[in-house]
Amino acid sequence: MGDIYQEALKLHEEAKGKLSVELKVSLENEHDLSLTYTPGVAQPCREIAANKENVYKYTWKQNSVAVVSDGTAVLGLGDIGPEAAMPVMEGKAILFKKFGNIDAVPICLDTKDPQEIIQIVKAIAPTFGGINLEDISAPRCVEIERTLINELDIPVFHDDQHGTAIVVVAGLLNALKVVHKKIEDITVVVSGTGAAGSSIIKMIHALGVKEIYGFNINGIITKEDYNQYDFLTQELSEMTNSRLKRMTMKEAMNEADVFIGVSAPGILTKDMVRSMKRDPIVFAMANPEPEIKYEDAIEAGVAVMGTGRSDYPNQINNVLAFPGLFRGALDVYARKITEKMLMAAAYSLASIVTDEELSATHVIPHVLDPRVAKVVAKAVAKAAQEEKVARK
Amino acid sequence: MGDIYQEALKLHEEAKGKLSVELKVSLENEHDLSLTYTPGVAQPCREIAANKENVYKYTWKQNSVAVVSDGTAVLGLGDIGPEAAMPVMEGKAILFKKFGNIDAVPICLDTKDPQEIIQIVKAIAPTFGGINLEDISAPRCVEIERTLINELDIPVFHDDQHGTAIVVVAGLLNALKVVHKKIEDITVVVSGTGAAGSSIIKMIHALGVKEIYGFNINGIITKEDYNQYDFLTQELSEMTNSRLKRMTMKEAMNEADVFIGVSAPGILTKDMVRSMKRDPIVFAMANPEPEIKYEDAIEAGVAVMGTGRSDYPNQINNVLAFPGLFRGALDVYARKITEKMLMAAAYSLASIVTDEELSATHVIPHVLDPRVAKVVAKAVAKAAQEEKVARK
Repeated sequence: MGDIYQEALKLHEEAKGKLSVELKVSLENEHDLSLTYTPGVAQPCREIAANKENVYKYTWKQNSVAVVSDGTAVLGLGDIGPEAAMPVMEGKAILFKKFGNIDAVPICLDTKDPQEIIQIVKAIAPTFGGINLEDISAPRCVEIERTLINELDIPVFHDDQHGTAIVVVAGLLNALKVVHKKIEDITVVVSGTGAAGSSIIKMIHALGVKEIYGFNINGIITKEDYNQYDFLTQELSEMTNSRLKRMTMKEAMNEADVFIGVSAPGILTKDMVRSMKRDPIVFAMANPEPEIKYEDAIEAGVAVMGTGRSDYPNQINNVLAFPGLFRGALDVYARKITEKMLMAAAYSLASIVTDEELSATHVIPHVLDPRVAKVVAKAVAKAAQEEKVARK
Repeated sequence: MGDIYQEALKLHEEAKGKLSVELKVSLENEHDLSLTYTPGVAQPCREIAANKENVYKYTWKQNSVAVVSDGTAVLGLGDIGPEAAMPVMEGKAILFKKFGNIDAVPICLDTKDPQEIIQIVKAIAPTFGGINLEDISAPRCVEIERTLINELDIPVFHDDQHGTAIVVVAGLLNALKVVHKKIEDITVVVSGTGAAGSSIIKMIHALGVKEIYGFNINGIITKEDYNQYDFLTQELSEMTNSRLKRMTMKEAMNEADVFIGVSAPGILTKDMVRSMKRDPIVFAMANPEPEIKYEDAIEAGVAVMGTGRSDYPNQINNVLAFPGLFRGALDVYARKITEKMLMAAAYSLASIVTDEELSATHVIPHVLDPRVAKVVAKAVAKAAQEEKVARK
């Protein structure tokens, strides 16, 4: 890894920022100036003043997203602050452009107060067609996102929650085809119930998984401990562990068809895998070292293995979800991103892998597959229209 | 004007926003992804977490400016709100790029509360190398700017105040050469004491003009009325009307060598111009119709006439100031823009008009003169270093 880090550092220094703002109009002479600035610019201003919705017609709002972070949960680095979060947010912005043709700008905030973050995002919202929340720690991120979804009329999406969840669900749908199991018959262990884990649990619960066991640093989530939990874990306790079992993850793995890890390296052992039901599915997404090494998982009999890494099959990477999701939402000037739109993104992402392509080592499209964003966008736009959250 | 408005509207609709965000790095394969995003991006994050100042080295902060408005004083349109202000802020952003090679993004705020605007700009400041406040009504704009200058460690500049003032001062310095008068001998009438007028009064006062009469909708500013004024007008009353005269603008024009208008069309009459001292200088910047028509001013004997319009000589246009000013400030990673930096911008802008070029119809460089931003930037960067507000 040392080499990649030094190479990345050099690239960042030489690039002087990974993104630039460029003109889409000509500015070569006084006539150009009079059209794009004064006096001509007054006319689109007047049209928008007369009808606020015209802002979509005459400005970049139709294609822009703010990538907002407070720097509290950046990659595996934790709470490193808004300045240090900038390289990640710039990276996110260029992924938005490359894969979704969306004009995204980083907005790193010098505050950790959820109410203040909500207030600021609401205040800057007129400028953007969507808000992508990023690397904000749980459970604050859920409160922030939920409030903003309710109070704003543009899509608000916390990628760390739902981006990963969409790709996991897509992978799970295809993996179940490979091992010939049905969604309603499986038992799933989810290790890690923060931003990503909580959204994964909600999505697979909505998908029809009957038994989910959620584990975090305090052990298994059970409704009996409801009053000791934060609001997010309380919600998860309603969707998991239906028989209120007190057990270790090792014990839970005995019952599991699927393991989904968004937690810490090495916590899944070969013995635990061997105790799983037939044809185990493992999505081990701790980064850079997964919950169980790829080779160990295969050796222990995993049928379908996915990780967050690009050097193994079935890479679970958010970039498969957020560009197409926002592309679809912006294409119809959506007012929000609903749960059905998230699910539409997951199903459409799964559908990209054709029956001919589908195999244990190909349940998720490749991150650079050029079909992905377009297919996801189309499904999401359609869902937005069906949900009546589209402006067009 | 109708034609230009319709043409501008069409252009805005077809352009789908006047600016875009583009990649400055390659994103073609997995190696590119691993350098610009995970895992490589973690390294610049770590370097910045270790030393916050490294944010200049590894991110776009070194070259980015937020163009922040609350939409309360947009062009001549007034308080039209944040959405309707967007076309102007996008226009500003493309001017920043075209003339200063600066990556600027519009940030239109859905709040008019000065304290909230201050709080929001402080919160987003880690993201940007500078803040350009725009079209915020007076006197709130002065309070907001002043507080932010004190509390932030990046340049904060309200263009409506100082942008116009810098160009006016540059024009005045050159116009005085044309008519062979000295700065300390002249009397100046300033019509309009809002954002631009107040900064003009402060700059020409600092420049050494001994007698300034400031007029606003309530008539002449006089220290005797101190307690009835807002804080900004109180400040101006200390710099103007030294003999506490009670007179009309018509009466004041009898004493004037120079008239500077940032007020309303048509308020300066030919008779008032004829009553001025020899070789009158008139900068009439009401837009689109100046305080006195160009032809009328010339007919009444004005020696040097400037307006805000591109179809007459001596166009006073902020675009001559802000791109070079911010370019210079960013080039040295300035912590703020000081009064000496503003003055350096004005002097350097004046200096661009060579003795050979200098004439009554050429006291201000042309808006498209390619020398402008570079010369201004160099002078501003030097002033920042002398003032010890430069990081490098």
